[in-house]
Amino acid sequence: MELRTRPLVLLISTCSLAVLTCFYLFPFSNTGIDDRLRTKQKNSFQAPKENIWSELSNQEAKDVYEFVFDELSYLNLTKHPKSNRENFIVVLETLRPNKTDAVPYLRDDAAIPERWAMARVAQVMEDEPYMVHYMVGPLPVGSDTQVLPLDYVFNSGRNYVANPVQDFFAIMEFGLSLAENVSDITQDLLGAVVNRNDPSDPKGLLCWPRPSRIERGGLSMWFEFFRPGTASGARTILPQGIYVKVDASSHNTDDWTAGQFYYNGYLYDTENDFRKAWQKPDFSRAGINQDGSWTDTEDFESKPAGRELPPPVAVQPYGPRYRLDKEQKFVSWFGFEFYITTAQATGLTLFDIRFKGKRVMYELGLQEAMAHYAGDDPMQGGLEFMDSFFGMGLNMFELVPGYDCPAYADYLDSRFHQTTHSYEHPNSICLFEYTADHLLSRHSAQYSVTASRNTYLVVRSVSTVGNYDYTIEYIFYLDGAIEVKIRASGFIFGSFFAHTNEDEYGHRIQEALSSSMHDHVINFKADLDVATQENDIVRLAWEPLTKSYPWDGPEIEERNTMHIVEYPVEKETAMDWPKNGGEFYVVMSSEEKNAWGERKGYRIAAGTGMGSPPHLTILNSTTLGDSARWAERDLWVLQRKDNEPRSADPLNYFAPHDPLIDFTKMANHETLKHGEGSEYDGDLVVYFNLGAHHLPHSGDIPNTLMHTSASSVMFVPHNFADRDPSRESVQGVRLQLKGKKGSGGFAGEQSEAASGDLRTRVARRAEAGEGHKAMYFGQTYEEGMKLPLEALEPDLVGRFESEEIGVTDLGFNGSAAGLWEREQ
Amino acid sequence: MELRTRPLVLLISTCSLAVLTCFYLFPFSNTGIDDRLRTKQKNSFQAPKENIWSELSNQEAKDVYEFVFDELSYLNLTKHPKSNRENFIVVLETLRPNKTDAVPYLRDDAAIPERWAMARVAQVMEDEPYMVHYMVGPLPVGSDTQVLPLDYVFNSGRNYVANPVQDFFAIMEFGLSLAENVSDITQDLLGAVVNRNDPSDPKGLLCWPRPSRIERGGLSMWFEFFRPGTASGARTILPQGIYVKVDASSHNTDDWTAGQFYYNGYLYDTENDFRKAWQKPDFSRAGINQDGSWTDTEDFESKPAGRELPPPVAVQPYGPRYRLDKEQKFVSWFGFEFYITTAQATGLTLFDIRFKGKRVMYELGLQEAMAHYAGDDPMQGGLEFMDSFFGMGLNMFELVPGYDCPAYADYLDSRFHQTTHSYEHPNSICLFEYTADHLLSRHSAQYSVTASRNTYLVVRSVSTVGNYDYTIEYIFYLDGAIEVKIRASGFIFGSFFAHTNEDEYGHRIQEALSSSMHDHVINFKADLDVATQENDIVRLAWEPLTKSYPWDGPEIEERNTMHIVEYPVEKETAMDWPKNGGEFYVVMSSEEKNAWGERKGYRIAAGTGMGSPPHLTILNSTTLGDSARWAERDLWVLQRKDNEPRSADPLNYFAPHDPLIDFTKMANHETLKHGEGSEYDGDLVVYFNLGAHHLPHSGDIPNTLMHTSASSVMFVPHNFADRDPSRESVQGVRLQLKGKKGSGGFAGEQSEAASGDLRTRVARRAEAGEGHKAMYFGQTYEEGMKLPLEALEPDLVGRFESEEIGVTDLGFNGSAAGLWEREQ
Repeated sequence: MELRTRPLVLLISTCSLAVLTCFYLFPFSNTGIDDRLRTKQKNSFQAPKENIWSELSNQEAKDVYEFVFDELSYLNLTKHPKSNRENFIVVLETLRPNKTDAVPYLRDDAAIPERWAMARVAQVMEDEPYMVHYMVGPLPVGSDTQVLPLDYVFNSGRNYVANPVQDFFAIMEFGLSLAENVSDITQDLLGAVVNRNDPSDPKGLLCWPRPSRIERGGLSMWFEFFRPGTASGARTILPQGIYVKVDASSHNTDDWTAGQFYYNGYLYDTENDFRKAWQKPDFSRAGINQDGSWTDTEDFESKPAGRELPPPVAVQPYGPRYRLDKEQKFVSWFGFEFYITTAQATGLTLFDIRFKGKRVMYELGLQEAMAHYAGDDPMQGGLEFMDSFFGMGLNMFELVPGYDCPAYADYLDSRFHQTTHSYEHPNSICLFEYTADHLLSRHSAQYSVTASRNTYLVVRSVSTVGNYDYTIEYIFYLDGAIEVKIRASGFIFGSFFAHTNEDEYGHRIQEALSSSMHDHVINFKADLDVATQENDIVRLAWEPLTKSYPWDGPEIEERNTMHIVEYPVEKETAMDWPKNGGEFYVVMSSEEKNAWGERKGYRIAAGTGMGSPPHLTILNSTTLGDSARWAERDLWVLQRKDNEPRSADPLNYFAPHDPLIDFTKMANHETLKHGEGSEYDGDLVVYFNLGAHHLPHSGDIPNTLMHTSASSVMFVPHNFADRDPSRESVQGVRLQLKGKKGSGGFAGEQSEAASGDLRTRVARRAEAGEGHKAMYFGQTYEEGMKLPLEALEPDLVGRFESEEIGVTDLGFNGSAAGLWEREQ
Repeated sequence: MELRTRPLVLLISTCSLAVLTCFYLFPFSNTGIDDRLRTKQKNSFQAPKENIWSELSNQEAKDVYEFVFDELSYLNLTKHPKSNRENFIVVLETLRPNKTDAVPYLRDDAAIPERWAMARVAQVMEDEPYMVHYMVGPLPVGSDTQVLPLDYVFNSGRNYVANPVQDFFAIMEFGLSLAENVSDITQDLLGAVVNRNDPSDPKGLLCWPRPSRIERGGLSMWFEFFRPGTASGARTILPQGIYVKVDASSHNTDDWTAGQFYYNGYLYDTENDFRKAWQKPDFSRAGINQDGSWTDTEDFESKPAGRELPPPVAVQPYGPRYRLDKEQKFVSWFGFEFYITTAQATGLTLFDIRFKGKRVMYELGLQEAMAHYAGDDPMQGGLEFMDSFFGMGLNMFELVPGYDCPAYADYLDSRFHQTTHSYEHPNSICLFEYTADHLLSRHSAQYSVTASRNTYLVVRSVSTVGNYDYTIEYIFYLDGAIEVKIRASGFIFGSFFAHTNEDEYGHRIQEALSSSMHDHVINFKADLDVATQENDIVRLAWEPLTKSYPWDGPEIEERNTMHIVEYPVEKETAMDWPKNGGEFYVVMSSEEKNAWGERKGYRIAAGTGMGSPPHLTILNSTTLGDSARWAERDLWVLQRKDNEPRSADPLNYFAPHDPLIDFTKMANHETLKHGEGSEYDGDLVVYFNLGAHHLPHSGDIPNTLMHTSASSVMFVPHNFADRDPSRESVQGVRLQLKGKKGSGGFAGEQSEAASGDLRTRVARRAEAGEGHKAMYFGQTYEEGMKLPLEALEPDLVGRFESEEIGVTDLGFNGSAAGLWEREQ
């Protein structure tokens, strides 16, 4: 198995590729634009500060490994673990600095905060497997470097969690054996048997456990048979409807037992009972969920009218208008500035987001991605995923240029360290501007039309966690608005359609396949610092009002109307998106006001996904316990604390009823009042959920479609500036028409100058003279272009670097397929 | 004043322009694509049926005018009316056929339904002005043509409404005179006076009435002073805070009186009282809301980094992939087919929308666009617009190529007939495909990645009603989804900021300007015929559930989970977007099922605007009366009836307490049960609202931004087909990687063939051989292109046809500015 521990050289080569892409494009002649372009491409742009949240470099990781192996020598850590019965480093990554330490560096030129690493170690204690957290620092490794238990970020007070999975390979082996034991039955009912020598044999079967069933006091799992869905990776829509219960609690695999069988609505206590029933002539058979062309994600043959032409495509022949420091992962774009970093569990996080020199957020990033199913069969009935466990960062794979992102996008790599290996996912983050199909603003007056383009900046990654593909993006708009958006695609996790199904948990979507209802709830942290670190949050409520106004009489005694009532949020609380959208949630600076005396604010709003993002339907989920209480409401406002940096830990999955991080202990109604007499400093943090109630239907086969699976939250400036800041940055046109005889104040005419500054601008417009005139703001295209094929359709074969999609380490086959083998 | 009664030639010339645009673009060499393109451009595409909803042709209108003048000769209709004291034809347009008559033609090859016209006539009866409706037909005018009262479409039972505006010009003249009377005061308090000779004098003032105050039993109005905002058409953000009450109820203008004055929170009974107070030394002055560069919609000078380069732009060098019959305004695109038509009040409506041969909707179009303000001053406190009154169709002006729509878009004209004039708004509807910045679907497997582009079709128009610009669009997606979206831009209608303001109705956003809270509620009709005309609507509710499952024991006695509960909607009702998005509203065919036995359906969902579209905050609005009860909830499901074709009439504005169409009489709880024993035939219709609670802030100056003002509803196929239909149409790529050793069913590998159809497709993929291979579905770009400037930045001066933005008739200056002069 080839380990892709690629040197930093790759970072540089990717960088060069982007520059090349620009040089591919030739204007018909040299112009001023072209000169400016050349200057721009020198790539001399540098972040103002170091990216103090960056992933560990390979060298840092190597040094820390060696140091930890040495310091924890009593653990006999191994570099090549074969099971959870050994001790080894599972994950090594940056322990992000406390905000308290980071802010003086970022804002006041204090010294750079100490750099530390976090090590998650698989450790056998009293013969049971555990995951234990350590912090290592300061870095670089030196005389003052230490290895300390990392517990201050876990409100459980523990730095460890018991690992209920004694031995993953033994579990899979157990499944295989029990499947072989009933191969006479599967051959008869399903027309296939498991193939031990080739698990992905398209003619064979798989026997796979429900990954989420971590019960109190042991590991009791239901296995289900699947067809492998080899060609498209469609296993999760090929369930076969035979389920077997396994008790794998003991660390002695010899003690494991196969228990009940379930088929077609009937529960059998033993394999023997199942077999006896099957042998009876009146045995009731369910259908067979066969693989077939219906799982194909492509239709190469169909030729409806129009498919003979390529679709429209976006081009940016003169290159990007943002400035990017690839080394520091720092971006600057029309007043926005921010740093990008990644983590294995949570993927991208942005830090120190500013707009036009003002702080907006200290931190913005995903915390956890949950999918919770329901059903009346033993698999779907208990199915639930917390995808940070599998790694929303670890599963950020290479993006397809021209498809996942425009042909002209810039790409960044992500880097991860596991066991003692370092590896990179090339081109797994992309950055690009896009011009929307609609304008940012427009107005037609009598003699003029002004149109301003809505060009926005996107930072995107895609996390493919087994069957599902999450496209996650942060979008920046010229007015200062920030959007967080998730779109889901990939294969649903369907349930077997037995005759007993009656649309209570999904729809029938194939011969023997039922869609399986599930809630996606995906938690994000937004540590807002709106202009200042001291912030308040208020609810501006739209309320009906009946009132007598003096000027209304005598015709109207009382008027039914409405008004705004402001409710300050004075303690930590949960909020849902309001009924009828009737409240605006605005985070405001406690001190700083705009020119008109209004406090600078950002509104938190349900964004441009499908409707308003929902939260979990289930009340007090049996499966989740206390591991994801943030999922039960839409939005939370809390005090920000160094020892509460996250809403969840990926290992909450292992101990849902006693999680490492219990969100209810964070959201515990502490005061949000600050100032005189309060110990709270006014630094608040918001946690919010994206997601969807997903009731798949026939159109989700083969893949869920992203245009309707989107969910979004937006942070919209609210009195943040004195006037719309996009005016300074936007590209657009004022079209001045021929007429002059305006009327009524909607004229938009060219007329004689008035007084003061009015004179200047009216005069400038008058230069347009008679007749139509187009006056542009921002730069336009000034001549035709030769676009190389690369600008329209990138050379995927040449550019795509990955040899397979997946994570390669721990000695496992670490594909997208193999995730569940990874985190034992 | 030039009347733009342009011949049909213009339609043809616009058509030619689109063809030219394609020929502008030269591939580097001739290819197969190019050949196909040439074939395509022959423009031989024809609609299968006639557009029976089309606007009257100029000839039809001319014939009808003459016929009506003749038939109603006793009315002495005039061609050149000067006031509402004369009788004249205000509006002439197509009276759309009853669905009952249209369906046999569309679906069963019955004869084409009779064509009729609708005439709205200004008519003085018993010395009071009225608006009276007539129907004229059948057309063409012949021996059987009649003029009949049109009342069957009005549930008031009347075909007329009293016109409370006795004489608009007299009202404006009255305002001017009273403003002159207090010019000493305005000179002192505002530094300006009205200028009778040049109303748009930038140094002057305007005195303008609140347009919506139609009180019971007369016309009592509040006037307010404004600065004209000449350069950008910014009058509505330049209120000056002096208000005057006028009683203009009498048809004798000599009886009109100016009453109370209001300034800076104080009400004065007479002009004299106001003057006396002003003359006192302790008179409390408010600020002055001066015009200035802050109202500029353009910033030509600012040069932030990046603005020296043009933004990315979409191109479609090979031309469109839809087929368009411009004559019939019929569109065909990847299985979608529909007809477009317009009406003066409501703008675009789409008819007979089908997808892959199946009916989806008979009709989809806007009904009314309302903006309801609140405030504590006499202007904003009673301000409310119903923009169909001003004409959402009439105010669809020419679009800016490359800005309002992509450079490569097709444009259609719209045509209107008023008094005896016909005129056209060139290029006021656009049609284009766009490729989203994100994919329609994707999946990464271990050894393959499949990515499908989200290319969609947009039909767009922009209605600029005075200060506000509504971008209205219908979006079609490859999977059969249909989206209706509105975005607002243009100038807000601000209120004067007096010292008494305290953010109860808005924020301070300039020296003496306050944003003014308002609700936009915009009503649409969707006459769904999902597969069949007989439909049911159900609510699929996501509900928490606690249940004992047999397979859960003994570990779990009861499980907290969830399930779907289906509630049929059995009588006409209102529905709101559900709390926590916890219900799916699905319209289903009563008969037709997909291959899996699920009824073919379309889900109605809050779409990709900002959150879920809201309804009116105000309960039982005093201003609205019964004129817009549809605004009080999100969604309505009713029986469809020929005599209830619309939810509102534009003249509801004139009689809010006794409207021509009272929606409560339509939404009256009739049964939705059909079949055996029911008189109802199962043909239902949905009315839904888009809009926003708009609390403008400093960023709304100068213009509201469209990215955050969007609202949308989507109609999403729900078990409509057997599988995702976009697979057949979509363009994308399968990238096959080098690896072969798959595992676990997520492989996406190339492997040996299995059996049956599996063999074919696996074998086809195996042709890819070793190494990376990109296999495309749909057509890609195959070579570089020369793009002319026109493809990147259209020649606006050459292409833009309008000489001014507005409607030219009735002898008025009919600009966007002049709308309020028009519909008396």
